[in-house]
Amino acid sequence: MSNLAAVMTALGTIEIQERPEPRPAPGQAVIAPRAVGVCGSDVSYFLNGQVGPFVVEGDFILGHELSADVVAVAPDVTHVKVGDRVAVEPGVPCRDCSQCRAGRYHLCPDLEFLATPPYHGALVQRLAIDARTLFVMPDSMSYEEGALLEPLSVGLWGCHRAGLTPGDKVLVTGAGPVGLLTAEAARAEGALGVTVSDISATRLELAAAHGFATLSGDQLAACGQDFDVLLECSGAPGVLRQGLERLRQGGRAAAIGIGKKDVELPLHTLNWNEITLSTVNRYKDTWPLAMSLVSSGRVDLSGLHTGSFGLAETAEALLAGRDDPHSVKAIIYPQQA
Amino acid sequence: MSNLAAVMTALGTIEIQERPEPRPAPGQAVIAPRAVGVCGSDVSYFLNGQVGPFVVEGDFILGHELSADVVAVAPDVTHVKVGDRVAVEPGVPCRDCSQCRAGRYHLCPDLEFLATPPYHGALVQRLAIDARTLFVMPDSMSYEEGALLEPLSVGLWGCHRAGLTPGDKVLVTGAGPVGLLTAEAARAEGALGVTVSDISATRLELAAAHGFATLSGDQLAACGQDFDVLLECSGAPGVLRQGLERLRQGGRAAAIGIGKKDVELPLHTLNWNEITLSTVNRYKDTWPLAMSLVSSGRVDLSGLHTGSFGLAETAEALLAGRDDPHSVKAIIYPQQA
Amino acid sequence: MSNLAAVMTALGTIEIQERPEPRPAPGQAVIAPRAVGVCGSDVSYFLNGQVGPFVVEGDFILGHELSADVVAVAPDVTHVKVGDRVAVEPGVPCRDCSQCRAGRYHLCPDLEFLATPPYHGALVQRLAIDARTLFVMPDSMSYEEGALLEPLSVGLWGCHRAGLTPGDKVLVTGAGPVGLLTAEAARAEGALGVTVSDISATRLELAAAHGFATLSGDQLAACGQDFDVLLECSGAPGVLRQGLERLRQGGRAAAIGIGKKDVELPLHTLNWNEITLSTVNRYKDTWPLAMSLVSSGRVDLSGLHTGSFGLAETAEALLAGRDDPHSVKAIIYPQQA
Amino acid sequence: MSNLAAVMTALGTIEIQERPEPRPAPGQAVIAPRAVGVCGSDVSYFLNGQVGPFVVEGDFILGHELSADVVAVAPDVTHVKVGDRVAVEPGVPCRDCSQCRAGRYHLCPDLEFLATPPYHGALVQRLAIDARTLFVMPDSMSYEEGALLEPLSVGLWGCHRAGLTPGDKVLVTGAGPVGLLTAEAARAEGALGVTVSDISATRLELAAAHGFATLSGDQLAACGQDFDVLLECSGAPGVLRQGLERLRQGGRAAAIGIGKKDVELPLHTLNWNEITLSTVNRYKDTWPLAMSLVSSGRVDLSGLHTGSFGLAETAEALLAGRDDPHSVKAIIYPQQA
Repeated sequence: MSNLAAVMTALGTIEIQERPEPRPAPGQAVIAPRAVGVCGSDVSYFLNGQVGPFVVEGDFILGHELSADVVAVAPDVTHVKVGDRVAVEPGVPCRDCSQCRAGRYHLCPDLEFLATPPYHGALVQRLAIDARTLFVMPDSMSYEEGALLEPLSVGLWGCHRAGLTPGDKVLVTGAGPVGLLTAEAARAEGALGVTVSDISATRLELAAAHGFATLSGDQLAACGQDFDVLLECSGAPGVLRQGLERLRQGGRAAAIGIGKKDVELPLHTLNWNEITLSTVNRYKDTWPLAMSLVSSGRVDLSGLHTGSFGLAETAEALLAGRDDPHSVKAIIYPQQA
Repeated sequence: MSNLAAVMTALGTIEIQERPEPRPAPGQAVIAPRAVGVCGSDVSYFLNGQVGPFVVEGDFILGHELSADVVAVAPDVTHVKVGDRVAVEPGVPCRDCSQCRAGRYHLCPDLEFLATPPYHGALVQRLAIDARTLFVMPDSMSYEEGALLEPLSVGLWGCHRAGLTPGDKVLVTGAGPVGLLTAEAARAEGALGVTVSDISATRLELAAAHGFATLSGDQLAACGQDFDVLLECSGAPGVLRQGLERLRQGGRAAAIGIGKKDVELPLHTLNWNEITLSTVNRYKDTWPLAMSLVSSGRVDLSGLHTGSFGLAETAEALLAGRDDPHSVKAIIYPQQA
Repeated sequence: MSNLAAVMTALGTIEIQERPEPRPAPGQAVIAPRAVGVCGSDVSYFLNGQVGPFVVEGDFILGHELSADVVAVAPDVTHVKVGDRVAVEPGVPCRDCSQCRAGRYHLCPDLEFLATPPYHGALVQRLAIDARTLFVMPDSMSYEEGALLEPLSVGLWGCHRAGLTPGDKVLVTGAGPVGLLTAEAARAEGALGVTVSDISATRLELAAAHGFATLSGDQLAACGQDFDVLLECSGAPGVLRQGLERLRQGGRAAAIGIGKKDVELPLHTLNWNEITLSTVNRYKDTWPLAMSLVSSGRVDLSGLHTGSFGLAETAEALLAGRDDPHSVKAIIYPQQA
Repeated sequence: MSNLAAVMTALGTIEIQERPEPRPAPGQAVIAPRAVGVCGSDVSYFLNGQVGPFVVEGDFILGHELSADVVAVAPDVTHVKVGDRVAVEPGVPCRDCSQCRAGRYHLCPDLEFLATPPYHGALVQRLAIDARTLFVMPDSMSYEEGALLEPLSVGLWGCHRAGLTPGDKVLVTGAGPVGLLTAEAARAEGALGVTVSDISATRLELAAAHGFATLSGDQLAACGQDFDVLLECSGAPGVLRQGLERLRQGGRAAAIGIGKKDVELPLHTLNWNEITLSTVNRYKDTWPLAMSLVSSGRVDLSGLHTGSFGLAETAEALLAGRDDPHSVKAIIYPQQA
């Protein structure tokens, strides 16, 4: 049985290659990825070879939003078994540094994270991974939903970082996949109301279909300073600043979207309003909650999955967001070679 | 036009009496209560003349869970107007003591709270009240739902006091109105799962109909120590202790139900597990959130309203919980004399 | 008896003028300021006529860091009496808006703050003020110490805003009066160690005399990323950024110093390290703590008071910081006409 | 070279026995304990064979409050070296369970804690221990001070658990070693004032010598309800209840002292005042802070060390607290055979 992978061999180039069959080390399982979502960071590696300080060197496998089947487990692994359908948290911390010890394993300097150089990702038919990253899905949950737990985790952790409290009036800037799922997360955690802004009418339509109030770019610039919490998910230049200026005194913000390296902020205004700005690095401990919210219907994933691709179509999947204004989340099926 | 009230003139005795027509002082509105829920404290005053340190002396009007119509406003009142349908927060703080200044107005020693001696309650056709306690209901919200925002507020504040965090596994002990609404509050704020226990099969059926896992008394005694958060709503002897012993290490609890004056707790166990026990005095700042959760469908009030009574039937309403095992929440309609 | 004031009549111009004798309204006391510290905002009003959005129009009295004697009280005032020596919190909130109600009175939009247009300040021989702003000093506390409780309050609130926790390693950038007092505040609240940076060797000497580790500008640029908390007190261009880059992962910062209107921040770095940046608007509820820390010797004020001026020397006092590199805090004595 | 230990061979019986020479496993150091404080739990094991659920079976070595010399290190250990003088945190967590992962390693169910069955303690001349539990002492710190960092850690963590905030008025009940060090911890973390109560005049004298306000048992019963925080350190029957009733509304408490298995609490009063009661299981991450506070003079350890004993005098040391009313903390020197 072959183990095929979609390998990025150069900027903008994906080749299907054979990979060795993985074996589970102690504590590990071997999983067969069933659905892998395309993330903006995958696209950035593919087109630019880089995300922040991480630079692709040599062949590289993308993909870190995934669900999978368990196909083998090491003898010491007990909480998953062969045949389990699992959602996958894509990072493995050292569990022994000061960050891990402080309960912040997502900031572990030795975190091994899928599709972040030098670690390969999940666009492969089988890979070995620490079994503690696997969460068994209920039968009712589809592989696509399982893959979407990763961007939902971004939203949940962003809400946590912002200090979201039940009763807060929330503004989400950016209505892409992360923005929509962040808005869903805020609503599921008791936001008083959630307003979503974007410059794309198509994206605002989807936000409205999810039941959120919406603001166009012009409306955002003109609306009052009435929000308790800003969840910035666009990464677009100037939007963080614009959102911060829409907060009432004592407001809180999380910078979830990552755009330019540097950003100019209105310090006088922030001081006067005594705003708290929290930045965000992925997530931690979010999979059980994400799974519960989706399977109980408290988070609605409808309309997010907009394109399906086999492993050989990985390059098209990676470019779907660029080429199709209606694309929200492309999903690749690695077992479909 | 007469202004009739249901007046408790002696233990167990209600008389319908005429009251003076109220006029709004500055900052006040006159409201006509439309739906008033019966609370356990009303029943305790009616049968025992006392709740904790508060003792009924002379004629007394019960009722503090209510919705109303605004029928007059003082000239300086702007945020409500005649004709508005409102839910009512039944306490008025001094806004100037150290507790108010610290943002804990619900602990204000001079709080004027409806149906708490020496302050009369809402079982009257018209009363004057600080307009800041009034929250305009959306058209879609019924008067009965408006009245239920008060016990829902108890649940929301109990979740806050327990330090409920999205992702917590929650145990609610007691499936009366407050228990059910506390469970709803916990789910609406992102609990991973909510389990409700009670000794009444009837009440557990209602909890199950709301989608909660349920435990009988025997099952509670036998279940594992797997909960992050306990929300004790029964007030029954021994249940707080029993619930605390079901928490995992690092667990948190809120004592919402009020039973005996004193309670014996397993201090060694609590210390070993490093449990945090928060106690609860009503609520603060919960009406906008409660209204949002109900009107958006995130909190389900179905099955709670089990009996309807006119003002003249106040005594029957007060005894419904005692006399009918299927009674959950009796509602009195003061405008139906 | 005359009531003289140092009145700013034009940019850079102070005139001594007679003012009407104040009378205490209900809830007020009349105080005779004994020591008034010069703040950077006083200097900015004096030289530029403006601090942020606040613009001086017409005659204006400066001064908001003060201690005083109580010389009259309204009949309803009970917690201070004539003859009391008091430290003064210079802001009076409305106590009734949503910010006050939330326990954030310092963000009250109607806050009446001394020496912030349109409200005059304390460089006058007698003024009436809400008696709740007065805190009786112990006999052992000097008027100069009483005046320094105001900048110490800035430091205490900055520590609070930064989420300072006992055991944190703290970096304070800027060793002016606010920087030194912020460093003192951090140490008195259990910081593991406090390092102070500045570009002025004179100021670092004072910081070292207070027992703090010190860093020159060059040393700051070269030191490791080992701090848990940054307290930025310089307001100098680029220092907030530089300080933020010295934080370890999960670090927290408070922007206390106010410099340019806008500031460019390294968003990628902040996100990767998941830094929390809190901004700061003055303080709240800090006077009792400030007084306790000073009177118990846990905060050391030595070396801060570097110049003494009579009311007629107000202009010299305002320029002391500009003209004398060894000036830290000039104090004006309004009763010395 | 012999390796002598003070071994509890039966209730109330200590024998000096030879133990095998320890060798450091990977990650471990071998230490020679220099000063070992006697804790109430040591006494309870010695006299009753039990502390809570932990029962002594067979020979048992007591002692967990200690400083030591490093006498050997495994090749992979880098942060301590032979010859270092170290304070020792006496627990080793698994670093891999859900509690460790949540940053609560002190609640790790597999915690290996010195002198807690089945793990032997430090009354031995040499023992191997995880090197991560060792904290190098500054030259200025004595071995006795190093040993006292353990009970100081109890106080620091108790303050954390109580939610102590700078500016809180604090009541410490019980003026034994833990009570005094808890009061020191509270002061060093910015308490507004610290009042210590005890029924022993001798102990109150020591508390007064440390600069704390004091209350006798009678005075405690009669004083006002004016405290923000209670730190209960006596473990005496009824004192937790008494202290809780001295808190103002919104107060917080930590139950640090461990007395009877069960305790009766005034639930009505706690609810009315909305008190938060946190329980305490040892400490976590406190050694660097404890060391900093002692070496900078912010915590004063004077008067605590009241008796010195060689290893052969272990039994007398264990009984010093019972036999001598002036005993506060007995220290055993294991290298003095």
